[in-house]
Amino acid sequence: MPNTFGKLFSISTWGESHGGAVGVVVDGCPPNLPITAEEIQVELDRRRPGQSDIVTPRKEADQVQIMSGVYEGRTTGTPISMFVFNKDHRPEAYSEMKEKFRPSHADYTYQTKFGHRDPEGGGRSSARETIGRVAAGAIAKKILGLSAGVETIAFVKRVQDIEMPDDAAISTELIEANAVRCPHAETAEKMIERIREVRGEGDSVGGVIECRIRNLPVGLGEPVFDRFEADLAKAMLSLPATKGFEIGSGFSGTLLTGSQHNDPFENREGAIRTKTNRSGGVQGGITNGEEVYFRVAFKPTATLMQSQATVDVDGNETELKARGRHDPCVLPRAVPIVAAMANLVALDHWMRQHAQNRLFTF
Amino acid sequence: MPNTFGKLFSISTWGESHGGAVGVVVDGCPPNLPITAEEIQVELDRRRPGQSDIVTPRKEADQVQIMSGVYEGRTTGTPISMFVFNKDHRPEAYSEMKEKFRPSHADYTYQTKFGHRDPEGGGRSSARETIGRVAAGAIAKKILGLSAGVETIAFVKRVQDIEMPDDAAISTELIEANAVRCPHAETAEKMIERIREVRGEGDSVGGVIECRIRNLPVGLGEPVFDRFEADLAKAMLSLPATKGFEIGSGFSGTLLTGSQHNDPFENREGAIRTKTNRSGGVQGGITNGEEVYFRVAFKPTATLMQSQATVDVDGNETELKARGRHDPCVLPRAVPIVAAMANLVALDHWMRQHAQNRLFTF
Amino acid sequence: MPNTFGKLFSISTWGESHGGAVGVVVDGCPPNLPITAEEIQVELDRRRPGQSDIVTPRKEADQVQIMSGVYEGRTTGTPISMFVFNKDHRPEAYSEMKEKFRPSHADYTYQTKFGHRDPEGGGRSSARETIGRVAAGAIAKKILGLSAGVETIAFVKRVQDIEMPDDAAISTELIEANAVRCPHAETAEKMIERIREVRGEGDSVGGVIECRIRNLPVGLGEPVFDRFEADLAKAMLSLPATKGFEIGSGFSGTLLTGSQHNDPFENREGAIRTKTNRSGGVQGGITNGEEVYFRVAFKPTATLMQSQATVDVDGNETELKARGRHDPCVLPRAVPIVAAMANLVALDHWMRQHAQNRLFTF
Amino acid sequence: MPNTFGKLFSISTWGESHGGAVGVVVDGCPPNLPITAEEIQVELDRRRPGQSDIVTPRKEADQVQIMSGVYEGRTTGTPISMFVFNKDHRPEAYSEMKEKFRPSHADYTYQTKFGHRDPEGGGRSSARETIGRVAAGAIAKKILGLSAGVETIAFVKRVQDIEMPDDAAISTELIEANAVRCPHAETAEKMIERIREVRGEGDSVGGVIECRIRNLPVGLGEPVFDRFEADLAKAMLSLPATKGFEIGSGFSGTLLTGSQHNDPFENREGAIRTKTNRSGGVQGGITNGEEVYFRVAFKPTATLMQSQATVDVDGNETELKARGRHDPCVLPRAVPIVAAMANLVALDHWMRQHAQNRLFTF
Repeated sequence: MPNTFGKLFSISTWGESHGGAVGVVVDGCPPNLPITAEEIQVELDRRRPGQSDIVTPRKEADQVQIMSGVYEGRTTGTPISMFVFNKDHRPEAYSEMKEKFRPSHADYTYQTKFGHRDPEGGGRSSARETIGRVAAGAIAKKILGLSAGVETIAFVKRVQDIEMPDDAAISTELIEANAVRCPHAETAEKMIERIREVRGEGDSVGGVIECRIRNLPVGLGEPVFDRFEADLAKAMLSLPATKGFEIGSGFSGTLLTGSQHNDPFENREGAIRTKTNRSGGVQGGITNGEEVYFRVAFKPTATLMQSQATVDVDGNETELKARGRHDPCVLPRAVPIVAAMANLVALDHWMRQHAQNRLFTF
Repeated sequence: MPNTFGKLFSISTWGESHGGAVGVVVDGCPPNLPITAEEIQVELDRRRPGQSDIVTPRKEADQVQIMSGVYEGRTTGTPISMFVFNKDHRPEAYSEMKEKFRPSHADYTYQTKFGHRDPEGGGRSSARETIGRVAAGAIAKKILGLSAGVETIAFVKRVQDIEMPDDAAISTELIEANAVRCPHAETAEKMIERIREVRGEGDSVGGVIECRIRNLPVGLGEPVFDRFEADLAKAMLSLPATKGFEIGSGFSGTLLTGSQHNDPFENREGAIRTKTNRSGGVQGGITNGEEVYFRVAFKPTATLMQSQATVDVDGNETELKARGRHDPCVLPRAVPIVAAMANLVALDHWMRQHAQNRLFTF
Repeated sequence: MPNTFGKLFSISTWGESHGGAVGVVVDGCPPNLPITAEEIQVELDRRRPGQSDIVTPRKEADQVQIMSGVYEGRTTGTPISMFVFNKDHRPEAYSEMKEKFRPSHADYTYQTKFGHRDPEGGGRSSARETIGRVAAGAIAKKILGLSAGVETIAFVKRVQDIEMPDDAAISTELIEANAVRCPHAETAEKMIERIREVRGEGDSVGGVIECRIRNLPVGLGEPVFDRFEADLAKAMLSLPATKGFEIGSGFSGTLLTGSQHNDPFENREGAIRTKTNRSGGVQGGITNGEEVYFRVAFKPTATLMQSQATVDVDGNETELKARGRHDPCVLPRAVPIVAAMANLVALDHWMRQHAQNRLFTF
Repeated sequence: MPNTFGKLFSISTWGESHGGAVGVVVDGCPPNLPITAEEIQVELDRRRPGQSDIVTPRKEADQVQIMSGVYEGRTTGTPISMFVFNKDHRPEAYSEMKEKFRPSHADYTYQTKFGHRDPEGGGRSSARETIGRVAAGAIAKKILGLSAGVETIAFVKRVQDIEMPDDAAISTELIEANAVRCPHAETAEKMIERIREVRGEGDSVGGVIECRIRNLPVGLGEPVFDRFEADLAKAMLSLPATKGFEIGSGFSGTLLTGSQHNDPFENREGAIRTKTNRSGGVQGGITNGEEVYFRVAFKPTATLMQSQATVDVDGNETELKARGRHDPCVLPRAVPIVAAMANLVALDHWMRQHAQNRLFTF
């Protein structure tokens, strides 16, 4: 099932950008959870286009509907089907893209893989696919929060070469205080300026999103293939436009020696903790109770309002200048998506951990 | 199944460092493939300890046995069970580690997750688990090579801050020409020197392995969750000691603008190709026929021959200086493991692609 | 994913009887298949209530909508989301069932398993869940038919003790010629009479559905756990009200000796065939090219228009006489559902067979 | 993974009859369970050939070895690899079968599916494959017994037309008191006589095994596809030589009306129970706390010591009279296998139930 993610708390997304709707089916959700469409809408509004002048001006209300799995305000344990109808359809904006492959986009590979594709709005490769992930993630977030106070915070750490300081304060309020979702106001301002600048040139930029998960129980993640960080990596690289993932010390940690890098254990008020956290909250693939933190690289948006060299579906060399309305920088809207995927991974592993290692005591 | 990897060509590894044996079951292997234990042994010998003075001096013959799934020299399509017996067992080297958690190792998290663990040689968290991956990867490699000339080459790109030039020649011969598996002889020499140096101090180093997959068919990978790069990321982050993954332009690609970063299409001798390859051979999660290349960050080995601050199983603060024989740098032996995982991902996606998109024509 | 069926051609159903809608997401569908909502509607109309006087008189138009995965009349290889809105909602008919458990129904077990349930119309346990299976099965049917002339025919073999002769002619036309879907007109008449009789008494009856799959390729099914008949058995026992499954000679074949039971091979016009077919078209879990045939036992409908002894949600003993509109015999409407599930199993195994055993030749 | 069974407590079997060994890997086993090879051997000895004069006289010691996943007598939560070496190899007994397909056996379908097969001893289609199931089932049995007193009892209900009375006493002692594993001594004697008779004629017989699972928690099984009875049906039809499955009232229950068939609820000492149990312990796919009971039809053994019409691998018509040593009736040895599969299903569903529905309370 290539469109399904998660083993026990699993989600299946469906829908194209300009088809009837985009949606998700959440299977395996614990029952009795109080949840409303409004709570889910809050998260969707954070990824919605048209929020500010630095994202795509498309108007998508993206009003979520819960079609099943919730009765009298509580989940029933059966599949939760949610979707939002597609609107603001402008097929004419895509007539050229139907014939010409956008460079570094999914047009050519979809066409070759399937032999037939829906080109309107990018079809299935549209970022609208992530609506289902965010809706499902909102449910995971609520479960994690209610049960153990788990808190997942994502934010824009860097846009192109503009990076916020490592020691800046981070909170949801600070992150939501500006259009670019960088908690450091001064850096955020520069990032916004840069995005406006490249947009003016019909160009685009990328950057790095950081995410932190706090209060996770110790013991989540499987020793070998389904390591906590392996599933996070897969979750993040499954997002459009991502090119890299690193956890804890990441690539820069490779510059240290083992004695510099290791996190010594200590007894902190009766609990076994680490003095430093270069491990990023996971050791041997399993959470150790420290904060999980990781970073994701997003490349600059592929669809440009500039003329680019490309070929058409018949292989003839040509040029393409995109029309339509596209994000000059996907990061601000990707922030809630990164957090949603992290919550899905965390909840799924918690359920797995419980089934195998907490049900029976001998 | 936390110890299984792959949807159609799937492998399940089992075994602890010092139990009876470590092994793998390969399920879904195409039938009629000629394969011998000797061919598999070649790959295993590349990950074997004791190959040179810069890896662990443990003597592990690691002689593979094929127990099922091969009849008269050809695969039968039924599960291929392979294992190597464990030898050179020195439980006394682990008596202290049974009581004290090694910093940045899996000891503490295993103990907390399962409540019971095999501490000898790291038990299941031992790098010996990767024997099964390499054995299975050897089969995948042969299928990929025979069928389409797919060639997967991994090598050590950087050790700590010693990095080979980007434009250096790369070939299996150059890689295997030195103990560190860096194809650039001059850099290799410096790397080896550095590794000897840190080993002398009871310390360790990490670095970066790069991997390239050539001649892959266009169309491998699924659009959404099971993107080719997402499954590669999961595969790589499932390896012990990994902290990061990047494909194509990776983290540094985020410094470019879209117009600098995009790979223009061209018609090259009748084929649709890209002029540059910052995408790293995948677009929209699907291979585009260009070379797939990616890099993996390995942290410095956690087990040190130095005294480190830690706690014991009762939470008392103490110190631990490892005994036993450990790699001061895991990269040289990780090279064949990275390639094996890449081959497993590629073959699995090829089979998936064929089942859905090449079986029926309407 | 408890609500997903199939490994490569997989379906996920969602929805309760009286929620917003019931639907299905089909993942892994081959691309380029021409398909319309009208073709799918044909199958849905066969399972629709209100078709005749021997099924429930509920009016459910059950108009299917394709929301994704089809572009310009052809499948795109991405998820196909289909659903039908729920109508004709009469919550008052269920107020009593909210408090009292229907004997031999899912009310009590759902309540205990989940702690919270949607009682209206049976919620998720409603036969409306099978709408998604039939819609997905219509796609599988078309692929199987177009590609190899596979034909799957299900019919009512027995109602209570009224059984059609074994040697009666069977065709889709004969099956659809009467309300009970038994191809033998004379028997059908008696069955209909019996159903009317028990309905008059507020009672219900069950019986046996037989299904035949013709023109399947040799080689479908996996040797061990995923035998073709094992997956058929699971598919059938996953249908509401089923209590038994038998393939080929089934339970009565156990009365024969091996020499009476075995199917001798012969060379029929150059092809290896069996002279008899007590095996039911599968040997060693794998199709052998003969007709696959099997039977499914359906118990009498649990919901009765008679007073029955039961308990309420607090455990107090009480009586319940169902209101609402229910089938006195589920078999006529179950016929297309049985065929749909058989087609789903067949297509999934065909795709699996191709991926492992037909892609590579060495 | 066609050779894997179970979602959370999952087993993967491997091995051919006459290859190096046959084995199983158990993944997802709860940790800390005390288990020894001796306990597992007890179950294996019940399926072993050569136990009595009515089963195959092959001498297979089938001594199980635990290769991983158990440390100091307790499971570690990592994969448990177990196998038994193959012995008593007589390839000459199979030389003819290599060229000629045994009627109603897996020879022809394997050859056609895979294009290459191991004919010795039936290769992968050998009943030796079930050794792994029984070994894994022994672990599941212990967990179920320790945790909730779950008791699974299987026995031979019928051999050909010789059936034990429905009201006979049933206990493990009575079942193990005779060679045929029928708890009713008088019937057992007749069965044994019949088996000796057909064996004398080089013929074979089949029959019916019944299985009962007591003390299961309420709530196991998923509402739709993964119903408890659906997974039992799949488990049973995945066994060699099975042709049918029925639960509770089964096929004969279809002769009753709904008012005769329904199981009224009552309050028995404070607990909600049913007065009768035609449902067989499952309602709506979910266990209801009553005894689960089901029956499985086994056809007569296909391999006969008589001459049978068949074809050879080139399609030429010929005759085959098997040599080697085969069971004239598989039922006595299938009894522990049926129970093992039932225990695997029960434990897997218990773990699934816990993960989704018992971990979080809101």
